[in-house]
Amino acid sequence: MVVCQLICVGNGELGSGKGFHYYNPDEQIGDRKMRDWLRFSVAYWHTFDQRLVAPFGDGTAIRPYDKYTDPMDNALAKVDYAFEFYDKLGVDYLAFHDRDLAPEGDTLRETNKNLDKVVDKIVEYQKTSGKKVLWNTSNMFTNPRFVAGAATSPYADIFAYSAAQIKHSLEVGKRVGFENYVFWGGREGYESLWNTDMKLEQEHAAKLFHLAKDYANEIGFDAQMLLEPKPKEPTTHQYDFDAATTIAFMKEYGLDKDFKLNLEGNHANLAGHTYQHEVRVARDANMLGSLDANQGDKLIGWDIDEFPSDLYDAVAVMYEVIENGGIGPRGGLNFDSKPRRSSFEPNDLLYSHMVGMDTFAAGLRVAMKMKKDGVLENLVSDRYSSYNSGVGADIESGKAGLKELEDYSLDKTPADLRAATHSDHLEQVKNTINHYIIDTLSK
Amino acid sequence: MVVCQLICVGNGELGSGKGFHYYNPDEQIGDRKMRDWLRFSVAYWHTFDQRLVAPFGDGTAIRPYDKYTDPMDNALAKVDYAFEFYDKLGVDYLAFHDRDLAPEGDTLRETNKNLDKVVDKIVEYQKTSGKKVLWNTSNMFTNPRFVAGAATSPYADIFAYSAAQIKHSLEVGKRVGFENYVFWGGREGYESLWNTDMKLEQEHAAKLFHLAKDYANEIGFDAQMLLEPKPKEPTTHQYDFDAATTIAFMKEYGLDKDFKLNLEGNHANLAGHTYQHEVRVARDANMLGSLDANQGDKLIGWDIDEFPSDLYDAVAVMYEVIENGGIGPRGGLNFDSKPRRSSFEPNDLLYSHMVGMDTFAAGLRVAMKMKKDGVLENLVSDRYSSYNSGVGADIESGKAGLKELEDYSLDKTPADLRAATHSDHLEQVKNTINHYIIDTLSK
Amino acid sequence: MVVCQLICVGNGELGSGKGFHYYNPDEQIGDRKMRDWLRFSVAYWHTFDQRLVAPFGDGTAIRPYDKYTDPMDNALAKVDYAFEFYDKLGVDYLAFHDRDLAPEGDTLRETNKNLDKVVDKIVEYQKTSGKKVLWNTSNMFTNPRFVAGAATSPYADIFAYSAAQIKHSLEVGKRVGFENYVFWGGREGYESLWNTDMKLEQEHAAKLFHLAKDYANEIGFDAQMLLEPKPKEPTTHQYDFDAATTIAFMKEYGLDKDFKLNLEGNHANLAGHTYQHEVRVARDANMLGSLDANQGDKLIGWDIDEFPSDLYDAVAVMYEVIENGGIGPRGGLNFDSKPRRSSFEPNDLLYSHMVGMDTFAAGLRVAMKMKKDGVLENLVSDRYSSYNSGVGADIESGKAGLKELEDYSLDKTPADLRAATHSDHLEQVKNTINHYIIDTLSK
Amino acid sequence: MVVCQLICVGNGELGSGKGFHYYNPDEQIGDRKMRDWLRFSVAYWHTFDQRLVAPFGDGTAIRPYDKYTDPMDNALAKVDYAFEFYDKLGVDYLAFHDRDLAPEGDTLRETNKNLDKVVDKIVEYQKTSGKKVLWNTSNMFTNPRFVAGAATSPYADIFAYSAAQIKHSLEVGKRVGFENYVFWGGREGYESLWNTDMKLEQEHAAKLFHLAKDYANEIGFDAQMLLEPKPKEPTTHQYDFDAATTIAFMKEYGLDKDFKLNLEGNHANLAGHTYQHEVRVARDANMLGSLDANQGDKLIGWDIDEFPSDLYDAVAVMYEVIENGGIGPRGGLNFDSKPRRSSFEPNDLLYSHMVGMDTFAAGLRVAMKMKKDGVLENLVSDRYSSYNSGVGADIESGKAGLKELEDYSLDKTPADLRAATHSDHLEQVKNTINHYIIDTLSK
Repeated sequence: MVVCQLICVGNGELGSGKGFHYYNPDEQIGDRKMRDWLRFSVAYWHTFDQRLVAPFGDGTAIRPYDKYTDPMDNALAKVDYAFEFYDKLGVDYLAFHDRDLAPEGDTLRETNKNLDKVVDKIVEYQKTSGKKVLWNTSNMFTNPRFVAGAATSPYADIFAYSAAQIKHSLEVGKRVGFENYVFWGGREGYESLWNTDMKLEQEHAAKLFHLAKDYANEIGFDAQMLLEPKPKEPTTHQYDFDAATTIAFMKEYGLDKDFKLNLEGNHANLAGHTYQHEVRVARDANMLGSLDANQGDKLIGWDIDEFPSDLYDAVAVMYEVIENGGIGPRGGLNFDSKPRRSSFEPNDLLYSHMVGMDTFAAGLRVAMKMKKDGVLENLVSDRYSSYNSGVGADIESGKAGLKELEDYSLDKTPADLRAATHSDHLEQVKNTINHYIIDTLSK
Repeated sequence: MVVCQLICVGNGELGSGKGFHYYNPDEQIGDRKMRDWLRFSVAYWHTFDQRLVAPFGDGTAIRPYDKYTDPMDNALAKVDYAFEFYDKLGVDYLAFHDRDLAPEGDTLRETNKNLDKVVDKIVEYQKTSGKKVLWNTSNMFTNPRFVAGAATSPYADIFAYSAAQIKHSLEVGKRVGFENYVFWGGREGYESLWNTDMKLEQEHAAKLFHLAKDYANEIGFDAQMLLEPKPKEPTTHQYDFDAATTIAFMKEYGLDKDFKLNLEGNHANLAGHTYQHEVRVARDANMLGSLDANQGDKLIGWDIDEFPSDLYDAVAVMYEVIENGGIGPRGGLNFDSKPRRSSFEPNDLLYSHMVGMDTFAAGLRVAMKMKKDGVLENLVSDRYSSYNSGVGADIESGKAGLKELEDYSLDKTPADLRAATHSDHLEQVKNTINHYIIDTLSK
Repeated sequence: MVVCQLICVGNGELGSGKGFHYYNPDEQIGDRKMRDWLRFSVAYWHTFDQRLVAPFGDGTAIRPYDKYTDPMDNALAKVDYAFEFYDKLGVDYLAFHDRDLAPEGDTLRETNKNLDKVVDKIVEYQKTSGKKVLWNTSNMFTNPRFVAGAATSPYADIFAYSAAQIKHSLEVGKRVGFENYVFWGGREGYESLWNTDMKLEQEHAAKLFHLAKDYANEIGFDAQMLLEPKPKEPTTHQYDFDAATTIAFMKEYGLDKDFKLNLEGNHANLAGHTYQHEVRVARDANMLGSLDANQGDKLIGWDIDEFPSDLYDAVAVMYEVIENGGIGPRGGLNFDSKPRRSSFEPNDLLYSHMVGMDTFAAGLRVAMKMKKDGVLENLVSDRYSSYNSGVGADIESGKAGLKELEDYSLDKTPADLRAATHSDHLEQVKNTINHYIIDTLSK
Repeated sequence: MVVCQLICVGNGELGSGKGFHYYNPDEQIGDRKMRDWLRFSVAYWHTFDQRLVAPFGDGTAIRPYDKYTDPMDNALAKVDYAFEFYDKLGVDYLAFHDRDLAPEGDTLRETNKNLDKVVDKIVEYQKTSGKKVLWNTSNMFTNPRFVAGAATSPYADIFAYSAAQIKHSLEVGKRVGFENYVFWGGREGYESLWNTDMKLEQEHAAKLFHLAKDYANEIGFDAQMLLEPKPKEPTTHQYDFDAATTIAFMKEYGLDKDFKLNLEGNHANLAGHTYQHEVRVARDANMLGSLDANQGDKLIGWDIDEFPSDLYDAVAVMYEVIENGGIGPRGGLNFDSKPRRSSFEPNDLLYSHMVGMDTFAAGLRVAMKMKKDGVLENLVSDRYSSYNSGVGADIESGKAGLKELEDYSLDKTPADLRAATHSDHLEQVKNTINHYIIDTLSK
């Protein structure tokens, strides 16, 4: 049993779901429990490693394990803190990059050893706590060696190193039991087209994904593979620009059977899309894998990874999730979110996760209520109903070609055609959503 | 022979390429004449129909045919003006939407009659002038009936009408001899996801493209079919968001054998891309069909369709074109550009086209010089040369899997890996382009 | 009494505030009635003149007075419709541009006559209905003569015409009794700096504002004068870029005593700001005059003038209004909003206004509850409390100069300084706002 | 004499202006030498301290003084390198933040000692090299203590510390002889309005600027004081948003007599403006102080500080500078620019500065040629010439009020008014600039 070793906040209101307004993990929502819809995960990099740096600003974070100055001591102490944190918060999942857990050594061999030591401790904690890993990934973007990419580096040695790094990550995955394995291509893009062979770079990326999947199969590691789109930052252009582009890439290179998408709200905005749009694109293509839960500020042009608190976005995304029958085959909501730089106390970590969890729990409640009442389904089915009979049915069935449609249309008047269209009353649709939010969340 | 009927500008410096600094249509540039690289086309809608309206502003244009108040008289007078204009400017191609040429009647039957009458006159002019049509398209976005889309309208009657409209457009194409047939889906998108069945709408779009191609085949009309991406405006989201998304759509629905892309600079910017990026994406996929020549202002969030004058963009795009072996199978540079609202005199039409033509001619000259000198090719081939031998060659050939690459990498030091990467010297690359621009264009 | 002449929607649920969820005009909210906090106004141009055009799209609106084809008949019929609409909706105010009401004649003399005729009818309706004019303005942007500006036109005749147009507008104002008079400089900016004398143009703008105020004084017309910022669109850059820039302009040219600001949500976003930010800037400078109630889509780069439905924005703006002691000396919430192009039925006008009114009424309720509970006031006063005593008080009083502050600081440790700063817990602040929204609006 | 101690690049082509194409420091350009127009300055933070980090990426820079692991040894070695670099490059000026030069100690007293030791060495080098300091500034944004601002911090101890830090900076300035003293308020803004007293914070900022100026006067330090606008990043909103906002702030708080602006291209773009716009705003207000020479990528939403290579921007900015009679009273062009992260070799520092210097030298040449030929001046004076006589002169002189202008305008026809406006032929203006670039820069 975890006792208060490192973080001792709260006055009884925290821990195991206490202190939440809308999150009640074991409540039945539709056909499953709330926790099984949401499958919240804590991101190791933001929650335990992130120093709350900013452009032009050093880290402000105050963390209980700051006192451990030896890197490996620090890494091991963080694991204690992390599992205490998961327990207090009441989440079932965690997520990490390989390099989040342990410091690099002088060679990959040493780096792997460091990592394995920390993984051993995590595996121990898993046994007693039952916590699972939603997904893992390899950090192939921070180190200077990835300056021009990892899989897409122009330098074969860097491709080789990336492949080797992933190999060990997959082995860790097998040991720990990841639900998913994510690739975020933070350096897989270009700074300038003038010196870039974009096609060759994309072929290399695909090649590494295939190698990874083949090796996972070989060792019997059956996590769902995921790609995570982001349009730019750190590079000028990243190849996995958005959901549509990434799906296209997968199909072009035969990866669409084995890979799905991990989608994030802030990344969606940076590509000019809403979060809902990205989830819809994935859902329509049966490509929704998992979700990174965070929010951006649409007036800000970089990735702020804010904890989600916007109820509109949460409702929209959870509506798509319900329509999809769940987040994905093995997906969850991973908080790729960090407290604001000014929220630098340890307690802010707990409180900010609670805000994010409550926001998505609220979104789930509202979306499920709308779904049960059939509000939007009826709206949509009514709107397209002209395809159910007459010329619409002939179009659907393929019976009507251009000639038949010309015959049908040639003498229609402007008034006939206007009469065929109907007002969408979108203002009322938005109002309806407001009322569902208020009515569902009030007691 | 065309005499000065309607537009009588110029003092001898205009006409047949006179007055240009860089455009010299019959000059040999590489393996073909300049005119055959550029294949400039005048856009009927901007040049002859556009009143130079703006948000919150009525049209300012002063045009010689404004005196013709009867719509059909006006439409026919415009043809005289147009062919005089092509002749003076020295372009070989024109482009139009069906609705640019003639007013709508009360029914499609009457509308088609109006259109045919104007097309007859165009065909006559073609015989004497030799001018060709780069591409045609159907305007399925202006009329209120397309309020919720054309091919993607929720209303079957509107799909039917769109199909009928395209049928006639294809027949016109066959008669006039279009090189390409373009679809720009100005209303094929959504205003809100809440009332939109995005997947069904995209299936309908694909269905109409297939019907169009089938009918073109049936009547022996062999124009290259093209889709034109634009991310948003007029709608919140358009399905043909950018080159990558549109290629993905084509592949998903089996259109990629018969369709290619028509790409535009301003649309690229609105999607968060450079014009060069979009052309590169298309080129890498062998999907470059034709180009809309214009430029946006990256600080402005809507489509301004400015005549191109930026030499950097012109060099970049023409470099991609040269690498592609030409713009596309039957493509050209169509000026989807309009004079600024404050350039409202008839002469501005001539002068602004000349600026655009000169800019792209300059771009071609500079890009060809860089190509001949192998500047960028060497840069790129050097940069990726580590894949030509050793571990790089093993990666390319598939000989090296994760295990071999781990063996290769496991004991490399950070210094080894840094030594494998090289500075890109991008500042000097940009400087080199500056010098090529100055040196090539100065005599 | 107004009977159902032109618009006969509703089944009893509309009219005089019926059908609203949160808007209850005569309810006491703090020190005044809800209607006196909100002072809703209907914008003639959007509600009665707007045809729901879009870029690339003709108007879709269906309006009862479309049958009146003579422009003056149409203008007069619209007044009947408008006053019936105000009555049904239960608003107290209207707003218009001079050119909204009546068509232009061949000269300004005739134009004024047309306008006067419609104004006569409005004055009659005012007597029986008690409706007031929140503000009026001159449309000096639509007509081609304003191609290069009105007050800032390089052409003296256009400045002269603008002055003459305003003169009549002020006289109309005196007759009708406007609360405010607004200037929106839709063409007062530049397309290119290369041909623009920006300083001279701004001097001309200031000159015209002074002439207008002087003349208003002369005729005893005491409306509050307002400038309305917007950063760009239709021009590349408009001089009244945002609140801060416009206040600076007023001060530079001695207009700050007589003019205040009319602020709009969508314009705020286009300048890179939140609506709340713009209102705060004005409030801090005692320059808040009136508000245009609408919302933009921050992923869209042009003015969409959507009816407000976002509760977060409404709460934020109403919080600033409460802190300001009301919207402004004589200000209100004018719906510079239009239904979506797909909401083209007459009923959509009523419903969309109701959504907007309900949204701001909800915002008022929530903000007043937060104010009463002192939530944010305490947050802020606590945060800055170190300036109430000790070195903080010495800084405030001017007692401490650089030397004293150096003495105070020279030997402080990093830990001392960190201890002086506190976490902002912003995630919890956002959560608090969510809960105030839900709790206040639920019954 | 400086010998090759630390950096030994080049094969004779570098050093003292060799290797430049357009920069020829002693060439007479108009009324002064090229070096006196441009007054290039090297930014210590980017050139010597910057490790070339990126979001999600560690530093890649390889620097000769990396071998010095003791912070003070490193700081002192950097000075040797720096002065060798200035000499090789042939620049006359440098610029730095206090914290660029030396590491922080445990207290400000120790920090000042560290700083003084490095400043001593700089002063020695100045004696032999003649290099001057264009400007200095205090870094009051990186350290966590500035998490919520420096001058605008809610915490009085942080205000006090900032004041103390500036005091020493000013004393250093007096000793070294700065031309200007710059304030960039990287943390002087807000993250959220909900917890911010914006007015109080701005009063505090003004207070500190006044204290600084007073103390500078007291010690006889006569540098020009400058504020540097930037709209956002690192905060959500910074108070010195852009030139117009910052000038307004200065006027509001009585700082406009003693302070001017330091403007940057990348910051301009982030505020939605061109660099030329910002310089024009400052010039019109007689507020241009100095320039930060860099460029952004308008498709990227954060500060990339790229070395300038865009000839269009350089021409535009230098045109404004010529019209202003020079950059500012004591201003220069400071390269607030860093090599791309992939340009990580020491040589890239030299080459990238040379590109920047050559680009601005080219801009100066082109702008001066246009100025001499009167191209744009004539364009502008013609455009506004209607204000020189007739009604225009009466408007200017104040003779014409609204009544006179109404008399003048009342019976003008639409045609009269259109005839008063003229086409701007902006396409040709842009073409003219292209030709001036090519013709001036070619030999």
